[in-house]
Amino acid sequence: MALISPSRRLRRTPFSEGVEAAGVKAYTVYNHMLLPTVFRSVEEDYHHLKSAVQVWDVAVERQVELRGPDAGRLMQMLTPRDLRGMMPGQCYYVPIVDETGGMLNDPVALKLAEDRWWISIADSDLLFWVKGIAYGYRLDVLVDEPDISPLAVQGPKSDELMARVFGDAVRDVKFFRFGWFDFKGRSMAVARSGYSKQGGFEIYVDGADMGMPLWNALMEAGKDLDVHAGCPNGIERIEGGLLSYGNDMTDENTPHECGLGRFCNTSTAIGCVGRDALLRVSQEGPVRQVRAIEIHGDAVPGCDRLWPLMAGDRQVGHVSSAAYSPDFVTNVGVGMVRMTHWDEGTELDVVTPTGVQPVTVKETFWI
Amino acid sequence: MALISPSRRLRRTPFSEGVEAAGVKAYTVYNHMLLPTVFRSVEEDYHHLKSAVQVWDVAVERQVELRGPDAGRLMQMLTPRDLRGMMPGQCYYVPIVDETGGMLNDPVALKLAEDRWWISIADSDLLFWVKGIAYGYRLDVLVDEPDISPLAVQGPKSDELMARVFGDAVRDVKFFRFGWFDFKGRSMAVARSGYSKQGGFEIYVDGADMGMPLWNALMEAGKDLDVHAGCPNGIERIEGGLLSYGNDMTDENTPHECGLGRFCNTSTAIGCVGRDALLRVSQEGPVRQVRAIEIHGDAVPGCDRLWPLMAGDRQVGHVSSAAYSPDFVTNVGVGMVRMTHWDEGTELDVVTPTGVQPVTVKETFWI
Repeated sequence: MALISPSRRLRRTPFSEGVEAAGVKAYTVYNHMLLPTVFRSVEEDYHHLKSAVQVWDVAVERQVELRGPDAGRLMQMLTPRDLRGMMPGQCYYVPIVDETGGMLNDPVALKLAEDRWWISIADSDLLFWVKGIAYGYRLDVLVDEPDISPLAVQGPKSDELMARVFGDAVRDVKFFRFGWFDFKGRSMAVARSGYSKQGGFEIYVDGADMGMPLWNALMEAGKDLDVHAGCPNGIERIEGGLLSYGNDMTDENTPHECGLGRFCNTSTAIGCVGRDALLRVSQEGPVRQVRAIEIHGDAVPGCDRLWPLMAGDRQVGHVSSAAYSPDFVTNVGVGMVRMTHWDEGTELDVVTPTGVQPVTVKETFWI
Repeated sequence: MALISPSRRLRRTPFSEGVEAAGVKAYTVYNHMLLPTVFRSVEEDYHHLKSAVQVWDVAVERQVELRGPDAGRLMQMLTPRDLRGMMPGQCYYVPIVDETGGMLNDPVALKLAEDRWWISIADSDLLFWVKGIAYGYRLDVLVDEPDISPLAVQGPKSDELMARVFGDAVRDVKFFRFGWFDFKGRSMAVARSGYSKQGGFEIYVDGADMGMPLWNALMEAGKDLDVHAGCPNGIERIEGGLLSYGNDMTDENTPHECGLGRFCNTSTAIGCVGRDALLRVSQEGPVRQVRAIEIHGDAVPGCDRLWPLMAGDRQVGHVSSAAYSPDFVTNVGVGMVRMTHWDEGTELDVVTPTGVQPVTVKETFWI
């Protein structure tokens, strides 16, 4: 791995001090901000995530806030998911598409009130798109990035740790719901969500000044739970089929290609900018789609570019993420495969920088 | 410096193979793409840039292309700079502002034809803003990111090297103009421009497949000129007062605060989205502005966050970029200073992570 040069443009977070003190070894850059990727080792972090509890600096999940009478209308313009049934206190995973149906982001939206929303974004400047649409349509809405920085608590002991800091009521928060909880006199949204399959919460930390106090409080309260700093884990998220915007999908893909058709209600999502473009694909299905890919043979290197998937001499897709899984004792991968070759059990070859390896298309991810 | 984790989301460029073979030591991430920052050492690269010639992978300068009858109208909506006098073949540095006058990017625009433009962007997803405005206003224009990857040739021997590859006619290209030149049968825009003060060109390489052939041709042709792979240099660009979007300015700043008032024609730039918001600041001037900051004392570390500028106990600005300059034998910096303390020669203190150092506000940058 190469080094990363520091600059203000690669923004620090309210938790960076804690991350550094915990011995972060590597970063990626996400929304112009530093996102830790390794603490002890990717494998050690992986086993620990599955057995204990971790605190993750995911301040890179910047919020796009919509406030005002047209906030709800604007939110529906952004996504083909029908939001009419959504209540304050709910989180929705919402594919965001442009006028061609291409994905611009795959965030989680939080409905704070009828006229106030947060969009907790993946890695693209979604703020620019939302502001452009709001301005072009002269909507009565304010759009900006508030001083909110998510901190995730993930792993099987998350409930216990969170209860010690926020009280037992936090145990009652349901999956993809959020409630308001107090920390040192400040009210913060706490959602049962997060970028792992191990369970846990995301705290929408209100104010950069509260970052390290909350970080320290969690670390202190969790000592006997073996709490440790962690981060989204490159092995665990592939096992669980958690897609990554920019890796496994880009603006070249429709939500349907990404297997997100169940989050698209093109017949009822009135006002969605990409609705017309998605009508046909929602009826007929896509011609290529995301699939779990098992890569046989030697442990693969990190996937820093698309790896072609070949049926003989013919390219029928690509792999976009891959890692060796200690628990499943095989290489796990995410791929995009043409419909001619996407059936469960199809045998293909993947071309990695280190050679050709046989793969099997799977029906489901590993967990 | 920490390590950077590889992933497809941090895109490689058509020149990455050449960059790796040349022994790149560190990167930053820019427009979701890898941008080299160090080859031999920042200081060695700096001296070499000023004395020889370098080839830079600046594919991170992604292009936003506007095509169609409304392309010119849309381009003028984006910037307060009056574009009426701009001819095909010209490059303009164009501050891009939102409806509040806040800067979204500071790109170079190339006018290819009356109905076709490229915006060669700094580090933000400007494509999203441009698409949002075009869609909201129902403009008759196509907006996308074409397969164009700039390669820069910078340094005092640039003319000689470029003439060997593109022919002597390239010597006649004037500053901030571009012409069309042939390489292996493909026509490419070649501009006299670049992110250094040492002179040179930017080649808008048309097609990823042409990346390594052109890289290799330049390296081969320049052997006796001591050509080497290089990159925007963190010392040289500060000496020369070349601002960096995300470092020295963000969407919180107006162009006038960034010293870019001369590129704003708010009285005549009819249709610019941010015109109304900028009228007052263009008449009365900003209350804070970018200044060259000389930092006395020990060599400073890299500036990975804003460093407060203090007049006694009162904060009157900040430093956003800094480096030790071997040629000027002092620390050079870029700061934003309130008008009460921005006069030439004002003595202040800067608070760096390693301590407090005295500074002097300068009238001009070093070169």
